[in-house]
Amino acid sequence: MRGMAPTALASRFGESVTANAFRSYLAEFISTFFYVLAVVGSAMSSRKMLPDAATEPSSLVLVAMCNALALATAVYISASISGGHVNPAVTFGKAVGGHISVPTALFYWIAQMLAAVMASVLLKAATAGQAVPTFRIAGEMTGFGASMLEAFLTFALVYTIYAAGDPRHGQLGAIGPIMIGFAAGAGVLASGPFSGGSMNPACSFGSALVGGSFKNQAVYWIGPLIGAAVAGLLYDNLAFAAPAATADPSGRGMSAGSGV
Amino acid sequence: MRGMAPTALASRFGESVTANAFRSYLAEFISTFFYVLAVVGSAMSSRKMLPDAATEPSSLVLVAMCNALALATAVYISASISGGHVNPAVTFGKAVGGHISVPTALFYWIAQMLAAVMASVLLKAATAGQAVPTFRIAGEMTGFGASMLEAFLTFALVYTIYAAGDPRHGQLGAIGPIMIGFAAGAGVLASGPFSGGSMNPACSFGSALVGGSFKNQAVYWIGPLIGAAVAGLLYDNLAFAAPAATADPSGRGMSAGSGV
Amino acid sequence: MRGMAPTALASRFGESVTANAFRSYLAEFISTFFYVLAVVGSAMSSRKMLPDAATEPSSLVLVAMCNALALATAVYISASISGGHVNPAVTFGKAVGGHISVPTALFYWIAQMLAAVMASVLLKAATAGQAVPTFRIAGEMTGFGASMLEAFLTFALVYTIYAAGDPRHGQLGAIGPIMIGFAAGAGVLASGPFSGGSMNPACSFGSALVGGSFKNQAVYWIGPLIGAAVAGLLYDNLAFAAPAATADPSGRGMSAGSGV
Amino acid sequence: MRGMAPTALASRFGESVTANAFRSYLAEFISTFFYVLAVVGSAMSSRKMLPDAATEPSSLVLVAMCNALALATAVYISASISGGHVNPAVTFGKAVGGHISVPTALFYWIAQMLAAVMASVLLKAATAGQAVPTFRIAGEMTGFGASMLEAFLTFALVYTIYAAGDPRHGQLGAIGPIMIGFAAGAGVLASGPFSGGSMNPACSFGSALVGGSFKNQAVYWIGPLIGAAVAGLLYDNLAFAAPAATADPSGRGMSAGSGV
Repeated sequence: MRGMAPTALASRFGESVTANAFRSYLAEFISTFFYVLAVVGSAMSSRKMLPDAATEPSSLVLVAMCNALALATAVYISASISGGHVNPAVTFGKAVGGHISVPTALFYWIAQMLAAVMASVLLKAATAGQAVPTFRIAGEMTGFGASMLEAFLTFALVYTIYAAGDPRHGQLGAIGPIMIGFAAGAGVLASGPFSGGSMNPACSFGSALVGGSFKNQAVYWIGPLIGAAVAGLLYDNLAFAAPAATADPSGRGMSAGSGV
Repeated sequence: MRGMAPTALASRFGESVTANAFRSYLAEFISTFFYVLAVVGSAMSSRKMLPDAATEPSSLVLVAMCNALALATAVYISASISGGHVNPAVTFGKAVGGHISVPTALFYWIAQMLAAVMASVLLKAATAGQAVPTFRIAGEMTGFGASMLEAFLTFALVYTIYAAGDPRHGQLGAIGPIMIGFAAGAGVLASGPFSGGSMNPACSFGSALVGGSFKNQAVYWIGPLIGAAVAGLLYDNLAFAAPAATADPSGRGMSAGSGV
Repeated sequence: MRGMAPTALASRFGESVTANAFRSYLAEFISTFFYVLAVVGSAMSSRKMLPDAATEPSSLVLVAMCNALALATAVYISASISGGHVNPAVTFGKAVGGHISVPTALFYWIAQMLAAVMASVLLKAATAGQAVPTFRIAGEMTGFGASMLEAFLTFALVYTIYAAGDPRHGQLGAIGPIMIGFAAGAGVLASGPFSGGSMNPACSFGSALVGGSFKNQAVYWIGPLIGAAVAGLLYDNLAFAAPAATADPSGRGMSAGSGV
Repeated sequence: MRGMAPTALASRFGESVTANAFRSYLAEFISTFFYVLAVVGSAMSSRKMLPDAATEPSSLVLVAMCNALALATAVYISASISGGHVNPAVTFGKAVGGHISVPTALFYWIAQMLAAVMASVLLKAATAGQAVPTFRIAGEMTGFGASMLEAFLTFALVYTIYAAGDPRHGQLGAIGPIMIGFAAGAGVLASGPFSGGSMNPACSFGSALVGGSFKNQAVYWIGPLIGAAVAGLLYDNLAFAAPAATADPSGRGMSAGSGV
């Protein structure tokens, strides 16, 4: 991502294999495992109750609610250890923006992908072989349209993650994981029957591998990765580059009164 | 809104075109874009699953949940930059109360309207031309009744926004964006099949322009603008004018113990 | 409630008619108005979509979600002004426990009842005369069984309100209004088709007056008032009487680390 | 669990019968009573509306939402008194990890079990004898598969409880009870039609005793107890053993900026 001398790279790699770094990978593994277990599991629950889940709004409510609750929790439990990515797209955006080194990002990806595959395997095994559903796009949609939708929704998700981790947000930082879950839930509700509403390449990959269909898999990588990278760059360089300044002359901003 | 000398107006206009001001407009654009993408997208999701969405309570749950989650997120990510309006009615209320200058308010409106239109266009394009639904009032209702309902619900939403930004609220300020999302979600659940449950002129306008029907559009401007203005004036001048004082002699108010 | 000399009573009454006290009544009025508008409105929404709402779980989800969102918001916006009662049962419990004087409690009740009636009238007027639904108990239930259910659920709600306002709760105080909304939402989901899930005499009274049926109204007064009074007395005298002490020797309680 | 001299045991037992300890047992009783009342009550609500609840996704949404809301509330109201276990599996995990003595843990279990049974009895009595539903596993699943699913979901729940009580989490501690409720809600959505989604032996036991069927009861003890113990040991010894260290070189972790 950035040219650097071999020594710097070796030093960066060295930072990626310390005990603390392994703790981060473990935290990403645990969080992503739970997230994928919940999201794919909820889709299986919905299908077990009603095989033709695609025609029932309550199925989408079920899956979206699970996504919101599970992502908030997954981010929460790893926030102070690994930064709470739980998503290769988030890790990609952080690497593009220079917030995390490339070797560390690769280990994050490995932990996330492994967790997603193992969660899908567990679901198949525990439910006595029930089919693992894969993310799918609507028949009339193009791959480009679906990628675009996933990109915009992942943009919002990652932008929210940046805002949640921004110390200038004051006491609003306390609700960061809830907001991240909310952003994901809203995205699923807005796009479920169209692009599938994944916003997470690990989740799409793990369920596709175990479910046995990689159809349109590219949609779930291209869209989210682009969305996440743009969100990070925009947040760092434009939206919030200078110290927070509000156009509201009364100073009655939302974070007024926070002592940070 | 307020009489002022031309010089003051020019100076105010000057404040509206600084780099920080543009950051605010960008923040409003991003937040409103995501909000409208989610809200209109969720209505499209619901209709794709069940064309006769008007007869199924789970469709209303789907749309209201999306509204709550998306508005909370949208307010959260722009709170520290632009104040987190995400709604021309909120901006109008702040301008009426003198919290924001008229030129700045106009730029906020432009950013919000542009975002709403672009989000609706994106949804139509990405879903291969599926119809963009517009906000509608029930057949038996009058425009006056629907405006009244939208006005009262927008009043509650904007009143909540004022409470969320009030530094006297102490540590309760931390959950402000969640409360704002909750107020919107409750409003949609209470009014969806009657007045449509918009409370946001930008959202109604964007979907109407792309959906191709401006029927009853006035309802979604008159109601919310009046409700927002009254909420701001009431909050500033009556409800919380003096330093907070509770009638509870034991001092066991909700915010007791907050050190702000 | 407590015997006191006429002078003390007059002095207490004097405290109840100051400007600050009127601000509290106004805050209770606004919060209760919004709460009843949302709760009764959501029941009307549900019935408009599906006249036989009693057979569809998503109708109960709709109404319970609205209750949770609206109560959290209603408590939030009045918490720092009036203490955020929004419910005559809460006011009754606070009066029994001596946290609020009897004259003030009476003015709170008047504000709450007036708000509930006016919200119901508004809904009837705005929706062109659609029937306002009243809280009802299941055919096979006794009034005693329904009162008992309402009493236990109101107990939990009011106990949560006491916990939320307790300064010893440290930083957990910040999420108090959310928790109060959650307690109400869970109560509705658990009791909706049995006792109606009101937990709020004002809400039951307002809808009954405008809806035209006071059948089983006593259930919605006796149950909640007893539950609220017991919750307050138990919290003050037993559960949390001494400074917080946890049985956990490691001191790893939830509020560890809070600086209050 | 750990060998100790009789004197130490007597001293530990002595700590378990003080007034403060009884306050903790009372707090666990109240919280578990409300939790079981809500969770089992919501399952009864769902069945009353739609007898064949197993085929309707909105029934699962109803029960899962109630679980999330009620657990968050139950943890919240007892967090500062008893630590907010509300679940024998959590108490077991804390005892295994040495955070609570064995005698105290036994008293916690007694309080929780008693509360669960009494809540189920109340529901049966108040609803004029309607059947109390018991947790069940899907016909095609093995007891091992179901236990595994319950174990992994309880692992996530208890891991979240540890994270919520960790003072190194800074201001994120404020939303702990919400996150614990979210973890439970996601677990129910992911596993409801497969293993029943209990994650709480008290809830399963109380409803089984009053409902009259102990079929597969072992699943709801073995899975959650193992999951809880592993979560506690992993959290204490591996995930967060050393002072928090993030692999993110920019220091932009979620909790950055918290002053605790």
